Amino acid sequence: MADAAPAKRTPSDFLKDVIGRRVVVQLRTGTTFRGVLASLDGFMNIAMEQTEEWKDGHLSSKLGDAFIRGNNVLYISAVKKRG
Amino acid sequence: MADAAPAKRTPSDFLKDVIGRRVVVQLRTGTTFRGVLASLDGFMNIAMEQTEEWKDGHLSSKLGDAFIRGNNVLYISAVKKRG
Amino acid sequence: MADAAPAKRTPSDFLKDVIGRRVVVQLRTGTTFRGVLASLDGFMNIAMEQTEEWKDGHLSSKLGDAFIRGNNVLYISAVKKRG
Amino acid sequence: MADAAPAKRTPSDFLKDVIGRRVVVQLRTGTTFRGVLASLDGFMNIAMEQTEEWKDGHLSSKLGDAFIRGNNVLYISAVKKRG
Amino acid sequence: MADAAPAKRTPSDFLKDVIGRRVVVQLRTGTTFRGVLASLDGFMNIAMEQTEEWKDGHLSSKLGDAFIRGNNVLYISAVKKRG
Amino acid sequence: MADAAPAKRTPSDFLKDVIGRRVVVQLRTGTTFRGVLASLDGFMNIAMEQTEEWKDGHLSSKLGDAFIRGNNVLYISAVKKRG
Amino acid sequence: MADAAPAKRTPSDFLKDVIGRRVVVQLRTGTTFRGVLASLDGFMNIAMEQTEEWKDGHLSSKLGDAFIRGNNVLYISAVKKRG
Repeated sequence: MADAAPAKRTPSDFLKDVIGRRVVVQLRTGTTFRGVLASLDGFMNIAMEQTEEWKDGHLSSKLGDAFIRGNNVLYISAVKKRG
Repeated sequence: MADAAPAKRTPSDFLKDVIGRRVVVQLRTGTTFRGVLASLDGFMNIAMEQTEEWKDGHLSSKLGDAFIRGNNVLYISAVKKRG
Repeated sequence: MADAAPAKRTPSDFLKDVIGRRVVVQLRTGTTFRGVLASLDGFMNIAMEQTEEWKDGHLSSKLGDAFIRGNNVLYISAVKKRG
Repeated sequence: MADAAPAKRTPSDFLKDVIGRRVVVQLRTGTTFRGVLASLDGFMNIAMEQTEEWKDGHLSSKLGDAFIRGNNVLYISAVKKRG
Repeated sequence: MADAAPAKRTPSDFLKDVIGRRVVVQLRTGTTFRGVLASLDGFMNIAMEQTEEWKDGHLSSKLGDAFIRGNNVLYISAVKKRG
Repeated sequence: MADAAPAKRTPSDFLKDVIGRRVVVQLRTGTTFRGVLASLDGFMNIAMEQTEEWKDGHLSSKLGDAFIRGNNVLYISAVKKRG
Repeated sequence: MADAAPAKRTPSDFLKDVIGRRVVVQLRTGTTFRGVLASLDGFMNIAMEQTEEWKDGHLSSKLGDAFIRGNNVLYISAVKKRG
């Protein structure tokens, strides 16, 4: 996607594109979540599935379904699709 | 739930699904609460029952009924049902 | 209360139930207050009586009547009634 | 006041009762102010007289009249009247 | 001013009284400013003249005119008039 | 651009000028992002492409497309065009 | 300007006076920016030119044009004009 000159995607377009995909969600506290982005709401609250909590580069717990409050989110990035 | 292609659950759908269930509530301060999620309000304030306060992986106190202010919540995850 | 299937108590129902009772109020700063919850307002500001300030598990001062600002409150839990 | 069953005092009733009295104002930063509570406004901004600034249990400066911003206030407690 | 029984001065009355006078402005970050309070606005933003920045009790820089953002202000106190 | 006397560019003019260019985005947490600024919204949320996350002066991860929450942004600066 | 009795300059008058001049912008995080204040908006967001980032008294990077988010600004002071 980064190759072709991108149509003007707003930040929320970007978020819609990654719903249902595996993402990394980094929080201000340093905690990172890996899993499937199920949905977001207008406050950036996030519902994730197959959620893994990572701290200092180590898997600290498997949470399954998780609700993450939006006001602590630092960034969300899409995990590159394999193949 | 993670297997079947999920109907589009919003974050608040997720929260409604876990009311009455055992949950883990992680706060920004590092404190974790385990117990039954009795209810939530629009500010993410939480009423919990059979509430246990955990710090650094240790049970620090049994609180019974507790009211937790929403603005410190980092995430809420459902504890997997046994069997 | 935790035994019978609870009628759906909202978080503010929970707070109304503990007015006049002995409670523990934990603040984000780590300070804990023990005393009688006299009243609350819509901003979660709290008026307490017979207030004790505890730090790191030690009684640090007896404050009598105290007004506690709501935006620092982490949680409020009811102290179990004796007998 | 703590003995007789108190009429239902709201937190702001409590604050009105202590205007003109000697109070302790504790801030989130750990700083404590002792002095006479001259007035408060709707944002919990405070005007104090005969103000003393205390840090780590020591008197650090005598400020006379001081304006204290409300958003840093942790709690306000009335100093018990002598005799 | 502290001797005569003060007419009921609101916090903003206090601030108006010290405009044009030498004041100490303490910020949440620990930085202190000394200088002449030229003006304030509704957000507690401050314009100061002959401004000195003090850190840990030492003069760290002379700023002349300075604009200080209101949301970091902890307190403002009037420096006692000499003689 | 800095040589000719600039027409009065507002901060948002500045941001519009750097859309599509390589930028540095510094967050309050100390994390720095380098990449192409794809778009911004009214809350300063940022969509970036070819995003690199830098910590303490070292490249810590390549994120590809990333959504960065606006409330943690400290500054955005344009990387000088080569040649 | 500090000698003659100043007409009543509001804080935003002060800011308008320093547009186009060399200023120091101190952020809450401890970072300092030196450069030409190109413009400000109602949220105190700042566009600067010839921007230098200073940390702990040392020049850490030359940013050229930079957009600085207003909510982290501690103070802005005008650098004294030479001669």
